[in-house]
Amino acid sequence: MDLNADLGEGFGIWRLGDDAALLDLVTSANVACGFHAGDASTMRRVCEGAAERGVAVGAQVGYRDLAGFGRRHIAYAFAELRDEVTYQLGALEAFCRLFRTRVRYLKPHGALYHAAARDEAQAAALVAAVSDYDDQLPLLCLPGSVLAQLAAGAGLRVVAEGFADRGYLPNGSLVPRTAPGALVTDPEEVAARAVRMATERTVVAVDGSVVPCPVESICLHGDTPGAVRCAELVRAALIDAGVTLTPFA
Amino acid sequence: MDLNADLGEGFGIWRLGDDAALLDLVTSANVACGFHAGDASTMRRVCEGAAERGVAVGAQVGYRDLAGFGRRHIAYAFAELRDEVTYQLGALEAFCRLFRTRVRYLKPHGALYHAAARDEAQAAALVAAVSDYDDQLPLLCLPGSVLAQLAAGAGLRVVAEGFADRGYLPNGSLVPRTAPGALVTDPEEVAARAVRMATERTVVAVDGSVVPCPVESICLHGDTPGAVRCAELVRAALIDAGVTLTPFA
Amino acid sequence: MDLNADLGEGFGIWRLGDDAALLDLVTSANVACGFHAGDASTMRRVCEGAAERGVAVGAQVGYRDLAGFGRRHIAYAFAELRDEVTYQLGALEAFCRLFRTRVRYLKPHGALYHAAARDEAQAAALVAAVSDYDDQLPLLCLPGSVLAQLAAGAGLRVVAEGFADRGYLPNGSLVPRTAPGALVTDPEEVAARAVRMATERTVVAVDGSVVPCPVESICLHGDTPGAVRCAELVRAALIDAGVTLTPFA
Amino acid sequence: MDLNADLGEGFGIWRLGDDAALLDLVTSANVACGFHAGDASTMRRVCEGAAERGVAVGAQVGYRDLAGFGRRHIAYAFAELRDEVTYQLGALEAFCRLFRTRVRYLKPHGALYHAAARDEAQAAALVAAVSDYDDQLPLLCLPGSVLAQLAAGAGLRVVAEGFADRGYLPNGSLVPRTAPGALVTDPEEVAARAVRMATERTVVAVDGSVVPCPVESICLHGDTPGAVRCAELVRAALIDAGVTLTPFA
Repeated sequence: MDLNADLGEGFGIWRLGDDAALLDLVTSANVACGFHAGDASTMRRVCEGAAERGVAVGAQVGYRDLAGFGRRHIAYAFAELRDEVTYQLGALEAFCRLFRTRVRYLKPHGALYHAAARDEAQAAALVAAVSDYDDQLPLLCLPGSVLAQLAAGAGLRVVAEGFADRGYLPNGSLVPRTAPGALVTDPEEVAARAVRMATERTVVAVDGSVVPCPVESICLHGDTPGAVRCAELVRAALIDAGVTLTPFA
Repeated sequence: MDLNADLGEGFGIWRLGDDAALLDLVTSANVACGFHAGDASTMRRVCEGAAERGVAVGAQVGYRDLAGFGRRHIAYAFAELRDEVTYQLGALEAFCRLFRTRVRYLKPHGALYHAAARDEAQAAALVAAVSDYDDQLPLLCLPGSVLAQLAAGAGLRVVAEGFADRGYLPNGSLVPRTAPGALVTDPEEVAARAVRMATERTVVAVDGSVVPCPVESICLHGDTPGAVRCAELVRAALIDAGVTLTPFA
Repeated sequence: MDLNADLGEGFGIWRLGDDAALLDLVTSANVACGFHAGDASTMRRVCEGAAERGVAVGAQVGYRDLAGFGRRHIAYAFAELRDEVTYQLGALEAFCRLFRTRVRYLKPHGALYHAAARDEAQAAALVAAVSDYDDQLPLLCLPGSVLAQLAAGAGLRVVAEGFADRGYLPNGSLVPRTAPGALVTDPEEVAARAVRMATERTVVAVDGSVVPCPVESICLHGDTPGAVRCAELVRAALIDAGVTLTPFA
Repeated sequence: MDLNADLGEGFGIWRLGDDAALLDLVTSANVACGFHAGDASTMRRVCEGAAERGVAVGAQVGYRDLAGFGRRHIAYAFAELRDEVTYQLGALEAFCRLFRTRVRYLKPHGALYHAAARDEAQAAALVAAVSDYDDQLPLLCLPGSVLAQLAAGAGLRVVAEGFADRGYLPNGSLVPRTAPGALVTDPEEVAARAVRMATERTVVAVDGSVVPCPVESICLHGDTPGAVRCAELVRAALIDAGVTLTPFA
């Protein structure tokens, strides 16, 4: 099983999350590429730390929106989005190259993640950017999303991720954030759900049913002290359960 | 002889210079990389046009200063500048890759060009960025500059450029812009000076003396209609004089 | 009748439109405030020119999106948009103050103009910003829009604008840009439509019917040479028809 | 005596310093205006909090450099800097206006603070911006600086600030940050120095001599937990010593 988390989300003087702690927990680092967060020196530092630890570097691409941290939907035209994704991929690749590694996958951030799950044009822009740049580059995304479908249709490798701290509906999709059961907050329960995902490829849905959850990666969060501790628990529980943690890419 | 010019210097809705005209005139295109000018779609378009014509693409790297077009000196620390240059190199490389070409050289823009000619720390940041990224990548710069010296000392290839529309002092350096004779405005004279540079590797200085001008590239300008016409004249005169126009890189 | 146009839409080295020509044609200048276009020195220059000519200055507020020129919808939360509008109003006010004038109205730009015509939250953010800042400040907007309704409901003065170069449906709304008859391109016809708007407060719809068009301002465009000439024609035709051109504010 | 500190220095999702804690300690808040830090919603929130507490709001104006937090010198031309300062003043004024207060003074931030202390053109740009905008607006700055001199010459009120946590030379200027004795780190000693500044208008220089320190405001810092605790100590010690804390403006 792979563990992924967002890293390098500071900008200039501002910090967000604990990059150093997460680098020791994950097997894949979604590195912000400068459009919604991330500056060049941070990108370099995270790529160096990832390379030293054998953590796979992925391009966490986002909208050009520092003020909104990429969390506001922007109605990009296809070509603009495709080209800004290409730009971000290349920028991150340069830092990987310094440390004898490569960008190993792409994961969209924030509002782009959500848009690409539903919006054909934005999903297609991501697919086009990846296909043109390197058609061997996997896309890490929400299973069942429009992005996952278009990417698979284009012959790209699609890697599904699961969320041990989110509730699931019986159909395998996430409980909307505004609905009851959206979040699992008890760290022990989160860890137990992660172990089930990793060992059985299932999840217990909000109605108690056990549903398939065929993911290759589990997403961790690290932007609060509590989140880091929870991520540590998840990692420890997976190792205790005999799960091998290794990058999917 | 190589002819280089700045391209892709618009941003979003705003245009600057005539990219299409210049792509038909130059052998090397200094493509703005998004920090002082240039957006992702423009970079893609210019790289495509350059690749189609066999024009070499160079990274025209600059300060992060859209409002000042990279023309205001910024007191960057070494690592910040090094990393932002790496970032820009990578971003441009991604677009080159789409069209089966590569970034073939680096040329600093505006205030960074001038700073790197005098300031050890900023010159060293450029040299470090290039050395770490690809030590075969030439630097296009002002002959005799601090950048040229440091780059040569680091084993990088340094390509000197000349300015057919600028006056030269007897010691081979440029007449400062505020001094008499700084600019050569007659297009015929500019063309004749270009031919002399290309065929004799000399220039007539402001005092009438003929001085060595061992350049491998001549810089053209294209941000005014008059500039494009002058560039056309220079190109035609060079061809008439039997000079082979070809990228240095 | 008032004539309004967008001014000050350059940024840094980049120009857009002919501010000087338009300042001599309009009675109200929608001045870009730095978020989608417009830098501080341009704002100052336009405010100075407007003050000298008795042209009313309005705040052309937009999304924070230089790369997209404010033409891409951004899903702002209410408070963020309200506060960014307040910020832009204040910035422009400072330049007005230097020339002994005031911001006399607000007009949203681009995608914000369109969003505020349909989206309650974004329209409400504009209304809140204006109400909190100066409840005597008129809003220049599309008649019948959600913004017009909310603003009127909040007791703000709403000024309707017409488009002499756009087709109208029999219900008084604009022909969508993608439908036949959306644009009127013949300058003489545009001028005649402007005169009808000013003297009869009517417009000839695409089906030939004459429909009410109770506008207090006509929007001119100036971002192409043809647009400036057309604006000159409109202004001349209105004066010939005995229409008094004066700011609505 | 006045106590001033930098507030509102976050941007978007990123936070810096403890605005809430500082608002309860200072009498004057230097509010970042969006160019080096500070977004519109933060500006609004800080202005509201300041107005509620009777804290004076000052414009903490800086270079347009979010990536560098305004700490890198930028070689602005006079008019560009003047106009960007005007812009920032106006933006902050709008938020003050919402809470029935005004911008009460201006203090330059970071590299602009240092440049204005030495560089005639940048100091003159600040003076011109303030004189044109409101010639009753005080400038909070380093005593003896070029800015202080030019501002006084232009008839502006100059308010000198002292630093209880910095060492002073016998001539009354600050010990350079790289020299021994530059920083006073013991909170008790910082508080004692503040009391001496407030009650005797003197400071003990690094050579032990007592030198005049005729300041009207003491600058506090709040960007670390330790800094906030130290600021609390300073405030308590001043009150214990019978010093009345009140805004200078």
